[in-house]
Amino acid sequence: MKTAPALATLLIVSFSANADDPLPSWNDTSTKQAIVAYVHNVTDPSGPSFIPVPEHVAVFDNDGTLWPEDPIPFQLAFVIDEIKAVAPSRPDWKDDRFVQAALKDDFAPLFADHYAGVFHLYELTMTGLTTDDYSRRVEAWLASAKHPRWQKPYTSLAYQPMLELLAYMRANGFKTFIVSGGGADFIRVWSEKTYGIPPEQVAGTFVLPVFELRDGKPVLIESSRGLFVNDGPGKPVGIHHFIGRRPVACFGNSDGDQAMLEYTTIDNPRPSFGLIVHHTDAEREYAYDANPAGSGKLTTALTEAAQRGWTVVDMKKDWKTIFAP
Amino acid sequence: MKTAPALATLLIVSFSANADDPLPSWNDTSTKQAIVAYVHNVTDPSGPSFIPVPEHVAVFDNDGTLWPEDPIPFQLAFVIDEIKAVAPSRPDWKDDRFVQAALKDDFAPLFADHYAGVFHLYELTMTGLTTDDYSRRVEAWLASAKHPRWQKPYTSLAYQPMLELLAYMRANGFKTFIVSGGGADFIRVWSEKTYGIPPEQVAGTFVLPVFELRDGKPVLIESSRGLFVNDGPGKPVGIHHFIGRRPVACFGNSDGDQAMLEYTTIDNPRPSFGLIVHHTDAEREYAYDANPAGSGKLTTALTEAAQRGWTVVDMKKDWKTIFAP
Repeated sequence: MKTAPALATLLIVSFSANADDPLPSWNDTSTKQAIVAYVHNVTDPSGPSFIPVPEHVAVFDNDGTLWPEDPIPFQLAFVIDEIKAVAPSRPDWKDDRFVQAALKDDFAPLFADHYAGVFHLYELTMTGLTTDDYSRRVEAWLASAKHPRWQKPYTSLAYQPMLELLAYMRANGFKTFIVSGGGADFIRVWSEKTYGIPPEQVAGTFVLPVFELRDGKPVLIESSRGLFVNDGPGKPVGIHHFIGRRPVACFGNSDGDQAMLEYTTIDNPRPSFGLIVHHTDAEREYAYDANPAGSGKLTTALTEAAQRGWTVVDMKKDWKTIFAP
Repeated sequence: MKTAPALATLLIVSFSANADDPLPSWNDTSTKQAIVAYVHNVTDPSGPSFIPVPEHVAVFDNDGTLWPEDPIPFQLAFVIDEIKAVAPSRPDWKDDRFVQAALKDDFAPLFADHYAGVFHLYELTMTGLTTDDYSRRVEAWLASAKHPRWQKPYTSLAYQPMLELLAYMRANGFKTFIVSGGGADFIRVWSEKTYGIPPEQVAGTFVLPVFELRDGKPVLIESSRGLFVNDGPGKPVGIHHFIGRRPVACFGNSDGDQAMLEYTTIDNPRPSFGLIVHHTDAEREYAYDANPAGSGKLTTALTEAAQRGWTVVDMKKDWKTIFAP
């Protein structure tokens, strides 16, 4: 007679662990527990850590945090494909050393000097297009291009645990923003469909287009004016610029996210949460700290994580699955 | 026996006009009818004009559209008070002709050359302050400064009919944004309290601050880099930049809003709505088309309104009240 109630309890617990777990792709480790505890504490109106709802601002890096950044950042794959497609009709690009490097898949010159070549090519592939035409080119590329390792469309490679985390935080009243070194105009094309993050909640590297009436119709023409690189110490600037208030939760994966992790968690009058996705799973994804390819260096930020109490995701141990099935 | 049902009907109609009318400060004119018809049509999921909810983006100019812009734009009143307060400790401003004009309340030199002097003073009063200190100065000014005509705090002068319109559109699933020539950092301090518009939904003129750790604490220092003037043809650029998608409804009051009205209503695949607030009420507010003070010129946009079918608010006839009681 003792077994029946025990079994009933077990069934209930097991049911609730499956059906009610908002983060089923996360193993039940201290990482998951830290996330859930934070969200619970700051959303409990009767608790001492409650944060007023309008201040529930959570910021997420994109490359390496919400999807992979190897073998090269996905936007760079797009830019290089664009350069290769357009170069034959652009003899004026012949003396552009970054274009020439791109045509040879020679990435090192592009990554040098804080990605100066990458941003140069970013501008080059946009300038002169209408913003609508640029979006259509991104859409067309995403519809056909495949990641060299998984042979799948890039947007299908969003991390399943992070998709669950985004949904979980939104279900708890958080507004989720992307704060990326990638181009705002690039990310906004697909962020709503892929992450549930609308264009108006994407902060990224930007240039400013120019407005004109062309044949009586309003268009915005991409230009190279006003380039702002939303990376490293640029990220807190981008947060202030696009969002206008300090986040309480910040998710990144590299030294490029260190400044926004500091901005979110140091001396914040609200309870805050910082998290770093550490790529430790060479089998299912990639394993790296200082990535020789130039993207995703995680050195000083990892050291600071211990000191600041930032939560570090060990992909191999903490994530049950990496990608959606 | 005939009177009783008629009276009952009358009571019901009258009750519903009061209790259910989301726009009680608007007279029942064709202007109000056009607004209500548009909102009804695009939010009716079974109708032919339905717009998917994420695209319910409505943009509002601020000065002259949501609150007055006379005798000078309210932010300029702040800037001039700041200049007067700080100038004694800034001998290096002695040869700045715009500072000298401001000290003498001589506005014409500030308005010349597309408000170049105004934006110069805007930068000058911010540069070097932390973003938090700048916000505190704006707050302190708003708490003490009074409008010269009404002798009331500036934020109490938001137009009551427009506050109702903002709430009405939000109640119908619209996301409401400010798209202003005023400074984003200025407006974001009070837009949530005054209009219910959070900082992340404010597009405005901007400069880009600089991030640093000062005594170990993260701060953003206002600088003059990257100035972008979000006015005139800059407004569609600012919309693309901050919001990342085309609005379906646009509310302005001057030629400075003409480009964003065009961007919203010409060749838009979605049903769109453009509206101009025409200042026609010298008794209760102001009456002007081409304002000699330099703000709020309404000339070419008014001509275009007739051609494009933009709705024009006649403040005197269409608004029952101007300010909250």
